Amino acid sequence: MAIETIIWEKNSIKIIDQSQLPLKLEYLYLKEIDQVREAITSLKIRGAPALGIAAALGIVVGIQSSSAQNWPDFREELQKTVNFLRSSRPTAVNLFWALERMIRRAEENNERPIPEIKRILQEEALKILEEDKICNRRIGQKGAALISDGDTVLTHCNAGALATADYGTALGILYRAKEEKKKIRVYVDETRPLLQGARLTAWELLQEGFKVTLICDHMAGAVMQEGKIDKILVGADRVAANGDTANKIGTYTLAVLAREHHIPFYVACPFSTVDLSIPGGEKISLEKRSPDEITQINGKRIAPKGVEVYNPAFDITPAKYITAIITEKGIHRPPFIKTLRGKEGK
Amino acid sequence: MAIETIIWEKNSIKIIDQSQLPLKLEYLYLKEIDQVREAITSLKIRGAPALGIAAALGIVVGIQSSSAQNWPDFREELQKTVNFLRSSRPTAVNLFWALERMIRRAEENNERPIPEIKRILQEEALKILEEDKICNRRIGQKGAALISDGDTVLTHCNAGALATADYGTALGILYRAKEEKKKIRVYVDETRPLLQGARLTAWELLQEGFKVTLICDHMAGAVMQEGKIDKILVGADRVAANGDTANKIGTYTLAVLAREHHIPFYVACPFSTVDLSIPGGEKISLEKRSPDEITQINGKRIAPKGVEVYNPAFDITPAKYITAIITEKGIHRPPFIKTLRGKEGK
Repeated sequence: MAIETIIWEKNSIKIIDQSQLPLKLEYLYLKEIDQVREAITSLKIRGAPALGIAAALGIVVGIQSSSAQNWPDFREELQKTVNFLRSSRPTAVNLFWALERMIRRAEENNERPIPEIKRILQEEALKILEEDKICNRRIGQKGAALISDGDTVLTHCNAGALATADYGTALGILYRAKEEKKKIRVYVDETRPLLQGARLTAWELLQEGFKVTLICDHMAGAVMQEGKIDKILVGADRVAANGDTANKIGTYTLAVLAREHHIPFYVACPFSTVDLSIPGGEKISLEKRSPDEITQINGKRIAPKGVEVYNPAFDITPAKYITAIITEKGIHRPPFIKTLRGKEGK
Repeated sequence: MAIETIIWEKNSIKIIDQSQLPLKLEYLYLKEIDQVREAITSLKIRGAPALGIAAALGIVVGIQSSSAQNWPDFREELQKTVNFLRSSRPTAVNLFWALERMIRRAEENNERPIPEIKRILQEEALKILEEDKICNRRIGQKGAALISDGDTVLTHCNAGALATADYGTALGILYRAKEEKKKIRVYVDETRPLLQGARLTAWELLQEGFKVTLICDHMAGAVMQEGKIDKILVGADRVAANGDTANKIGTYTLAVLAREHHIPFYVACPFSTVDLSIPGGEKISLEKRSPDEITQINGKRIAPKGVEVYNPAFDITPAKYITAIITEKGIHRPPFIKTLRGKEGK
């Protein structure tokens, strides 16, 4: 995969500025914690796994200039940095998971000199990044078994290379299936309001030589009715213990349509997206974003003044609509409450 | 209603240029048949009932400068004008219905002098316009019985004043319910790609003092899941004898979601939209529009080059998803094959 969504380079986080795609492929070097947080809130970097990596590397950026001389002072600075990043986006659990892992790693080493703790934290962040790559490959490998030669797959938003450190979760499965010489057509819905489907997914799939058909989000019903879609494959921002899945707004609409048309509906994510501490989807905090995202396009207003706007960034797809959840551990099928917990999927 | 979507003024068709709304309220005077057809194909005027009126008045514009001295010559010119307008948009039956009515009227009077036939055709076109107003009011009156005080109604695209000569079909019902002092909140989906919901429906509902909440199309599932929607109300471009309904793309997706959430799904249209010559929806011709409508917004490209696009303008909602069809004749309930044919609804 030639796409470098997020890497560590020159003591800074190098990312693709995804808000510029597909018109411009521009890289940003984030050297300050403020830049990291801004890149996250403005969706220059997005996607649950990539957010985990950005958070971990964000800690490294945040504490690298720390002048703390002892553990209590350093711990305080670390906690401030964690809190600052933690408040950036509420839904993707990978962000919290990565931050907690970084704190734990620091605490395990709290008797070491501060420069060494800094080095250990940098190693840990890079380990999270490397693990994500391996994880992507495993998800791809496990999930590709579900894709048949000649399939047409519908996907939503972007769960690809641009959402991870490697080749993606949902799209990783398609990349792997293609490596296995399966011919696949992909329908991509544009994913309003921020058009991650049209801008990001269409772009990266075309880079990799896929046949891509772009539709508007609400055309999904019509294309399923017309028999065009064999499978639906999406990512996840958080999966509850019972399999209820928070993902980009519009996922639930697709899941209902899939069931109506007897089309398998698959969710792909690293196991770090599964939040076993949450029993069901109703407990997942769902981010609401600015009305401007809907009322303006490219800075130009499209809706009349005075209109109220409801702009949730995510929705919950209840487990009953999901055919299987694919993680690096395997293909988890219902009842998810069993297959996600402890036991490996088959 | 203060909105003059389409009127006859100064020997020309005066329309609101809907491609400019909501940023600019600009009127156009169409004096040439080419202008009329262009206004239709570019959606400066749109909505099934308004298209019928535009077609009828388009004939008047088209034949007013005719120098034909006898019926055969005039008939030929008339037919040319009809054919030119007939090829503008394929789905809304009202356009064909109005053109045929105009031809019939001319033929009934083929022994009169040409200037008198021209005058009769103008009268007929204005009669179609006036009838639409009466029809709107009747649909509003019949349909308002289905709306309860305190309801939150979701609508799609624009089936309002901007789609008709008066106050609309689906929205006419809401206007009437409001006149009856019922408090109503309206959720409007933006209706990609051309944003008729965000641009037109939100605008006209705000003009009339409604509380309006704008959402992206694929948020419909989430807002229904959250219990926010009591009823769904849409227009129609063509209704087959069995009740299958062609309407703006995305309608079918809403209908499936409505059934999943046990929400009544109503279609409102003049009876001229019912095409009893077509047994079922599979026989309705569905317009496909330009990829540019999806890949560009405000003239700026948003999708990568090389992507294929599927851009149907309409979809078919099978009758089984429709709770009732409201026309000026009444509320037609299933089985529509009976209630649409001959017998009045209750």
